[in-house]
Amino acid sequence: MCVLIHMGNQKRTLHLNLFLSSLGHHEAAWRHPSSRVEDIIDFSRFQRLAQKAEQAKLDSLFLADRYATSRKAVKYGAISGLEPLTLLSALAVVTSRIGLIATVSTSFNEPFNLARRFASLDHLSKGRAGWNIITSGTDGEAQNFNYERIPEHHLRYERAAEFLDVTLKLWDSWETDALIQDKASGIYADNSKVHEFNHKGKHFAVRGPLNLPRSPQGRPLLVQAGSSEDGKDFAARYAEAIFTAQQSLADAQAFYADVKSRVARYGRSPEQVVILPGICPIIGESEAEAKEKEAQLHELTHPAYSLLQLSNRIGYDLSSYPLDGPLPELPATEQIAGHQSRAQLIRNLAERENLTLRQLLLRLAGGRGHRTIAGTAEQVADELEAWFTQGAADGFNIMPQLTNGGLEDFIDQVVPKLQQRGLFRTEYTGHTLREHYGLDVPANQFASAPQVH
Amino acid sequence: MCVLIHMGNQKRTLHLNLFLSSLGHHEAAWRHPSSRVEDIIDFSRFQRLAQKAEQAKLDSLFLADRYATSRKAVKYGAISGLEPLTLLSALAVVTSRIGLIATVSTSFNEPFNLARRFASLDHLSKGRAGWNIITSGTDGEAQNFNYERIPEHHLRYERAAEFLDVTLKLWDSWETDALIQDKASGIYADNSKVHEFNHKGKHFAVRGPLNLPRSPQGRPLLVQAGSSEDGKDFAARYAEAIFTAQQSLADAQAFYADVKSRVARYGRSPEQVVILPGICPIIGESEAEAKEKEAQLHELTHPAYSLLQLSNRIGYDLSSYPLDGPLPELPATEQIAGHQSRAQLIRNLAERENLTLRQLLLRLAGGRGHRTIAGTAEQVADELEAWFTQGAADGFNIMPQLTNGGLEDFIDQVVPKLQQRGLFRTEYTGHTLREHYGLDVPANQFASAPQVH
Repeated sequence: MCVLIHMGNQKRTLHLNLFLSSLGHHEAAWRHPSSRVEDIIDFSRFQRLAQKAEQAKLDSLFLADRYATSRKAVKYGAISGLEPLTLLSALAVVTSRIGLIATVSTSFNEPFNLARRFASLDHLSKGRAGWNIITSGTDGEAQNFNYERIPEHHLRYERAAEFLDVTLKLWDSWETDALIQDKASGIYADNSKVHEFNHKGKHFAVRGPLNLPRSPQGRPLLVQAGSSEDGKDFAARYAEAIFTAQQSLADAQAFYADVKSRVARYGRSPEQVVILPGICPIIGESEAEAKEKEAQLHELTHPAYSLLQLSNRIGYDLSSYPLDGPLPELPATEQIAGHQSRAQLIRNLAERENLTLRQLLLRLAGGRGHRTIAGTAEQVADELEAWFTQGAADGFNIMPQLTNGGLEDFIDQVVPKLQQRGLFRTEYTGHTLREHYGLDVPANQFASAPQVH
Repeated sequence: MCVLIHMGNQKRTLHLNLFLSSLGHHEAAWRHPSSRVEDIIDFSRFQRLAQKAEQAKLDSLFLADRYATSRKAVKYGAISGLEPLTLLSALAVVTSRIGLIATVSTSFNEPFNLARRFASLDHLSKGRAGWNIITSGTDGEAQNFNYERIPEHHLRYERAAEFLDVTLKLWDSWETDALIQDKASGIYADNSKVHEFNHKGKHFAVRGPLNLPRSPQGRPLLVQAGSSEDGKDFAARYAEAIFTAQQSLADAQAFYADVKSRVARYGRSPEQVVILPGICPIIGESEAEAKEKEAQLHELTHPAYSLLQLSNRIGYDLSSYPLDGPLPELPATEQIAGHQSRAQLIRNLAERENLTLRQLLLRLAGGRGHRTIAGTAEQVADELEAWFTQGAADGFNIMPQLTNGGLEDFIDQVVPKLQQRGLFRTEYTGHTLREHYGLDVPANQFASAPQVH
């Protein structure tokens, strides 16, 4: 029943990331009787979730991010909105092993600030920081940062690539052994190992060095989630972990093979990139009970809000279309300034299953395009094992529909089954996020001598 | 002996802010035998300091910031470099009452990001966030943010003023009672109380609202430290607490009177602005022992490093001048792009006391222009009382020369004397930073009805 792939002497095990949300990933989670909506922004709620995930030996916690909301959206949509790096810096203090992955956009930040804040979190957490790199995709966000429209897709990725180059230079600007700290001579650092690299490019001019010595991981783990052509190439070039939304095993296998081969084309080892599809588990004593739980959440959705969310996501206003008609013809993927790959996934889903707009909205209410598995703990574990062993995933980005109840169900019922099958760790063996994911510390581009980390 | 000024029925008491540094404010602190330089970036060190300050009922903790270092500077200068908001977010979790003031520059950030991060910290800490507003003043910093030179003084302040306007709009964009969270109807927020304000100015275009409901203090406490003409006007218009470097009682009194009258000219109440000069205490059993401690630290300085620091501070290269000659003629204050008021203070100090460059460097080694008081705990308490009761200060920004030893000396020996004299609280009476400083919550500019906070 349990198929294990062996890589050398190392048994391949899967990775689990908890995608944190305040009350749950389902858009109606806040209305569920179990949700304490009045505490939505309370830190103690996040602390409890983080500690629960760490007790279960999960690899990491992850926070997504957007840079806008609107008067329309807040009417029906629960907003917590704590800035990810701020919240993860606080969570670093109440956890000791679990990784901490924050989403920050390259379109609305400066490399020096971003490099420093992640290096600070990596120091604070003793090597547990990860950066989920996004380029952001909506006009609403752009309008909070001096633009009228979101810059075009390929321009955002062009800026992102230079942003990454500069950020990597900043993280490498202190070699590991640059600190001398010799009280007798008064020499603090060997400044032949501290680099003013003077980057001058199309988007950025940054002298360096960073004003913070090298952090425990050298550089934080780099995570990426774009699945468009630009996004996949970017991921293949830079990412060490990839979040992705995949609705079927076949699609997930195709994505997995595609990205791993792109990684190899950039001269990197495919094993050094971990692919983690999102999964929205809904667990019941029986499959019927799980489906019933899902239906109960679906009943709490507001179609007007769901439609607004979908319109924002694909960058196309759907508010004038009848809910019981089909998804209308959308602009070609390349015409979409925003999240191209998600728009494509949604179009494919509606077409393949011949969904009305109303049905589509419900399919997206739980995971915004990520796959929902409603079933028993055994069924969920079987599905994860199948994807893991059949070339579709190296692990999963877990998106509980409800925090109160749903998250506990996954951790208390599914994780032990994965452990019993030998698919998931029962103790942490590493201390850093990179160690949890089995990834090497990249070499320092400025180091002349071999590096010891 | 103890002169108390009464304001109505409220006895006026002073405020104490701890200016946090890793190993101490003296530039040679890291070389002192008591300093654990190998732990300079370790969070547990900051945690211990923060908790010690909170046990002593101090009003707040404060972190300064710069956005650059250089190969020259790191050779001799200890760098810790954790980004202030990151560190204070972590400290928020291990403290419960003390205020948390982070320095962030308006020249190298975007209002939306800054407003959100401070609101996040204010939520996390349940109303303890403060922002020390700086415009930054060195070319080295500008060169990490796409500039060749630091923008001119008045341009930085022009951007800062618009930055503040936008940031205040963002913090006010959610009225206090905008959240409905009604599960039955599915209405999350009363969006007539959430504002898309569409700011369009010279430097910024920001639509709003913030994607985070109003924080406990409404807006974080606004702190400012510029003492130039531009800086004082900016402070009078916006600041609720002001840090300042003053070398003599007379100068401090003049600054105090000047700023309070400017505050009144902007139609604000002078009592609603708290002025806090920096003080570097060095405490001994006797005055002679304190002076000996100071001399011991001075002996550990490197003149080359001190000179580099001074050159950076005043924006004028002094490396070719003889150490035993006088401070050379400097450009007129208005010609200085960087920190004008500090340059003026340093010039005045050298002139008034007829100091050689070498002597001047030692006078600046401890507090970079802030006043050092080396004496017994009784003498330090007397000096603080004198400034407080004679119209020079509403409290103090405490800058221990050494963290190990010096900070404890102040808290264990000076604070109890101030408490015995009825000059400082023995218990917190408030919960928010604004309550500690006795400052009102400002009205929301978008609220139509009277606000209840």
